[in-house]
Amino acid sequence: MIQSVAFIGLGAMGYRMAAHLPQHFDTVYVWNRNFAKAEQHAAEYATQAVELEQAVQADVIFSCLPTSQDVENLLDGLSLKAGSIWVDCTSGVPDSAKKVAAQLKAQQVDFLDAPVSGQTIGAEKGTLTVMVGGDAQAFEKALPAMQAFGQLIKHVGEPGAGFAVKAINNMLMAVNLCAVAEGFTTLKAHGVNLNEALDCINASSGKSAVTEMVLPQRILNRAFPLTFALPLLAKDTGIALDLVRDAKLSAPVLGLAQSLIQAANATAEPDSDFSSAVKMYEAWSKITIE
Amino acid sequence: MIQSVAFIGLGAMGYRMAAHLPQHFDTVYVWNRNFAKAEQHAAEYATQAVELEQAVQADVIFSCLPTSQDVENLLDGLSLKAGSIWVDCTSGVPDSAKKVAAQLKAQQVDFLDAPVSGQTIGAEKGTLTVMVGGDAQAFEKALPAMQAFGQLIKHVGEPGAGFAVKAINNMLMAVNLCAVAEGFTTLKAHGVNLNEALDCINASSGKSAVTEMVLPQRILNRAFPLTFALPLLAKDTGIALDLVRDAKLSAPVLGLAQSLIQAANATAEPDSDFSSAVKMYEAWSKITIE
Amino acid sequence: MIQSVAFIGLGAMGYRMAAHLPQHFDTVYVWNRNFAKAEQHAAEYATQAVELEQAVQADVIFSCLPTSQDVENLLDGLSLKAGSIWVDCTSGVPDSAKKVAAQLKAQQVDFLDAPVSGQTIGAEKGTLTVMVGGDAQAFEKALPAMQAFGQLIKHVGEPGAGFAVKAINNMLMAVNLCAVAEGFTTLKAHGVNLNEALDCINASSGKSAVTEMVLPQRILNRAFPLTFALPLLAKDTGIALDLVRDAKLSAPVLGLAQSLIQAANATAEPDSDFSSAVKMYEAWSKITIE
Amino acid sequence: MIQSVAFIGLGAMGYRMAAHLPQHFDTVYVWNRNFAKAEQHAAEYATQAVELEQAVQADVIFSCLPTSQDVENLLDGLSLKAGSIWVDCTSGVPDSAKKVAAQLKAQQVDFLDAPVSGQTIGAEKGTLTVMVGGDAQAFEKALPAMQAFGQLIKHVGEPGAGFAVKAINNMLMAVNLCAVAEGFTTLKAHGVNLNEALDCINASSGKSAVTEMVLPQRILNRAFPLTFALPLLAKDTGIALDLVRDAKLSAPVLGLAQSLIQAANATAEPDSDFSSAVKMYEAWSKITIE
Repeated sequence: MIQSVAFIGLGAMGYRMAAHLPQHFDTVYVWNRNFAKAEQHAAEYATQAVELEQAVQADVIFSCLPTSQDVENLLDGLSLKAGSIWVDCTSGVPDSAKKVAAQLKAQQVDFLDAPVSGQTIGAEKGTLTVMVGGDAQAFEKALPAMQAFGQLIKHVGEPGAGFAVKAINNMLMAVNLCAVAEGFTTLKAHGVNLNEALDCINASSGKSAVTEMVLPQRILNRAFPLTFALPLLAKDTGIALDLVRDAKLSAPVLGLAQSLIQAANATAEPDSDFSSAVKMYEAWSKITIE
Repeated sequence: MIQSVAFIGLGAMGYRMAAHLPQHFDTVYVWNRNFAKAEQHAAEYATQAVELEQAVQADVIFSCLPTSQDVENLLDGLSLKAGSIWVDCTSGVPDSAKKVAAQLKAQQVDFLDAPVSGQTIGAEKGTLTVMVGGDAQAFEKALPAMQAFGQLIKHVGEPGAGFAVKAINNMLMAVNLCAVAEGFTTLKAHGVNLNEALDCINASSGKSAVTEMVLPQRILNRAFPLTFALPLLAKDTGIALDLVRDAKLSAPVLGLAQSLIQAANATAEPDSDFSSAVKMYEAWSKITIE
Repeated sequence: MIQSVAFIGLGAMGYRMAAHLPQHFDTVYVWNRNFAKAEQHAAEYATQAVELEQAVQADVIFSCLPTSQDVENLLDGLSLKAGSIWVDCTSGVPDSAKKVAAQLKAQQVDFLDAPVSGQTIGAEKGTLTVMVGGDAQAFEKALPAMQAFGQLIKHVGEPGAGFAVKAINNMLMAVNLCAVAEGFTTLKAHGVNLNEALDCINASSGKSAVTEMVLPQRILNRAFPLTFALPLLAKDTGIALDLVRDAKLSAPVLGLAQSLIQAANATAEPDSDFSSAVKMYEAWSKITIE
Repeated sequence: MIQSVAFIGLGAMGYRMAAHLPQHFDTVYVWNRNFAKAEQHAAEYATQAVELEQAVQADVIFSCLPTSQDVENLLDGLSLKAGSIWVDCTSGVPDSAKKVAAQLKAQQVDFLDAPVSGQTIGAEKGTLTVMVGGDAQAFEKALPAMQAFGQLIKHVGEPGAGFAVKAINNMLMAVNLCAVAEGFTTLKAHGVNLNEALDCINASSGKSAVTEMVLPQRILNRAFPLTFALPLLAKDTGIALDLVRDAKLSAPVLGLAQSLIQAANATAEPDSDFSSAVKMYEAWSKITIE
């Protein structure tokens, strides 16, 4: 029975995710490196902004940081409460999850890697998808807490499995981003009406989240709103490729997409949304996808 | 005002598409190289099985053949009626559409390249997507006839534009087929539960028609039902790549997917469904996607 | 027995190739679109600058133009002498060679596609490699004329075979150009001394004409001298890829190299040497190969 | 001043490399896991087959094992002599070299990663190329010992740099192996004479160690002699790709070649020479490169 929960890392996602917790739990601690953000959250949502040492005494501790390295750094030297569960919503590295899960196990703490998808809108509405790796019993115990912000919550395997699914998901999106950029510059070069073509493809076998959402909402309208930074997508595709390498598999398309996203990132303007990756293709073809 | 229509090529798609026409038009001719099929259609749907020379005297003539070459061969030497419209639903070659459109124009006949998507189930229900290239006025005139079997019907550009959109659509599907095979063998190598992972991805940015339909309906259940042959997908990716080459563009992901589908096709068993392309990856990884 | 020869197209290669002919033949016609160049050649090497119509009455006519299209345009409407041999040293398109060979055969003229390699230095010294496609007897008859500037002269097959070998040769070079750029930026990122590494590789299994010549003579010294323009390499890789497509083969590495050279060309400065393709990789990696 | 040397690992390369040492040093220890091989070496070349503990008391200790992991396992628990130099000729992992070099430094022992190229014939003749990473002074001190079997011996950088150069060298070879297989199946599909084409390419810009040696000596003659196993090439390309990943670079061609060699290895017969990788392409194209 969960009495207290904590949320560490109040970024664009975490801030909104933590906002749902007070509706379900009496004691909700929040903490953020820039502590003013924690205090703002406490004021806005009736959570408690506390010291990190106190926050991590909760029954369930959520973290949502930029990288697994940030989580490892944070954990380094922290003393946790036996029996508690750490639920890491970072889009992290599977090997790190395995290592941290083993370390926390020694302190009788369970670690779940539980990255989320659904963007800020999903965080706000509490309709996120949560893909969870780690101990099955810990998953069951932490489930009520994850339900505060998650709609589809799946236990996908051992420690690291959650991170793996997230990395492959984002890699598939990256592949589509490249392929759609290539396909739509080609169509435009042949004088095809892109909006009509898109309608057809979205009713056909070539559709993807990129054609259904990214292309109309970010690219064709030339908005490229910064909600998921291109360097983070480059990082995620790298995590996915490391999974391929670790398993000694052959994944030519994923490997190529990773190279291309990396190249697009290297030549992008600062603070570029992931959708800006198509601009590399536009520079190559002198064709604007609009 | 369309008085008569004809349908040439009563294959798996054409047979079902032509079945809707009698509900909208008094005179519906059908023709098929294996003429018994035309007679069977006439008996089943009250169409008229007639000689090719008579069929092509209709106001609107549909064709649905394996390749553009088949259409060109069929047209060779045929005398058409001035003012009629030829609507070719083959998944064909844009350059062929341009050539044929110009030839028929000399006979005062309009040619529309109008490939369809939606599979046999869509043909049966009359809910196909039709992507149409060619003269805009001819499109408007032929629209009522296409509405007999089509739900979303779009004029996407000049002659060849319809074929181009279909080729790029199928190429995007091919890219996803490869990427999903690579991603899911990787996940399985890391011990991830594929069904749970799939649920998560289908609620996230990595989803595509392949993850939503092909993977659960054809691959994970090991069914691989032959409804769209792998050699035809190989052909379509080739058409798409030729569009890239013609426009002198750079499309590394599409090019790689074409190579891989080609390789998968070369090493596949006869009569393989397109979804069997993943078996090449299974041979490489010794991992079965199930 | 060859009595007269002609050389059409006095560019950087042709000017030097034609200079060897007077040592072997009494009658040597030269022609160039910019005719002043022909007159200069006549003054310098005792050749005869004549009208195109007269030049093509020679027993053996060489051409060396930018593209096969230029050769076809030139031939259009020209009246040739029965029994003569046209030897085209352009880096051309195999399909064009087949077509032109068939056309000239009707005029009882043989056509040999005979592209050369060895650069301007080889043209000057008369040590070029000549790869020849076409009729075997015509090859034997034209051989003495080709020996004026060629050292290794090989009959590689039917019409188009010479162009095919040249295209594949240049494609292999393009592949190495990309791979070396990728490999050497990687080595530099890891602090390796590039010059010492190059010495080792040039004594090992990773060596190629790119590591032995292009890298030290054009890239590491940052010279990038314009002797073979990047757009021409892009064209040649396109010809090679069309050969792959025509044969319905799967060539993922060649396809990718073509895409990358195309992309490098699209983003290069005007008048870039082919070796400048590595600058795309330098922009991606922020690493200079020096 | 080197008084004693040792050679550990008497495989196909090591056995021949160690054979040169008695001509230069009075005390030459040899050791091999299968000790009979060490005794055979001692009988044949007047070296001393001794216990591992004694062997590693030499001034310079060479090792030549299948993988870096084997070297680490061997070193685990060994007590070395301060002031000695360990020269590892394994084709190993740069990160392992860094780690081991740091560990041995604590015992006042220098570690040089010094992989070799030149095959068994070069080992026999003492004409190997040695690419060396590690401390510059240690390199100078160990140089006389390496000269026993090496001809071109280069200090290429810090610990790991030698392994890095070897990995990139083998990767470049792998890229050429793939590209040549693609190019030559394409040429054969177009009826080109492969032997004549090869002569032309070997005199031109497309040449490489693969066209000059591997293709004529192993592939065109259908010999595929097992001297360098395909799994080892797959391993080396993996090491190269890890270098790319570590540096966060974009190397699409290297990544693709790694995938393809991995795939070729996964589908190859047991005990395949690296040159057998072309058989994957032959299966794809139904064309034999001969």
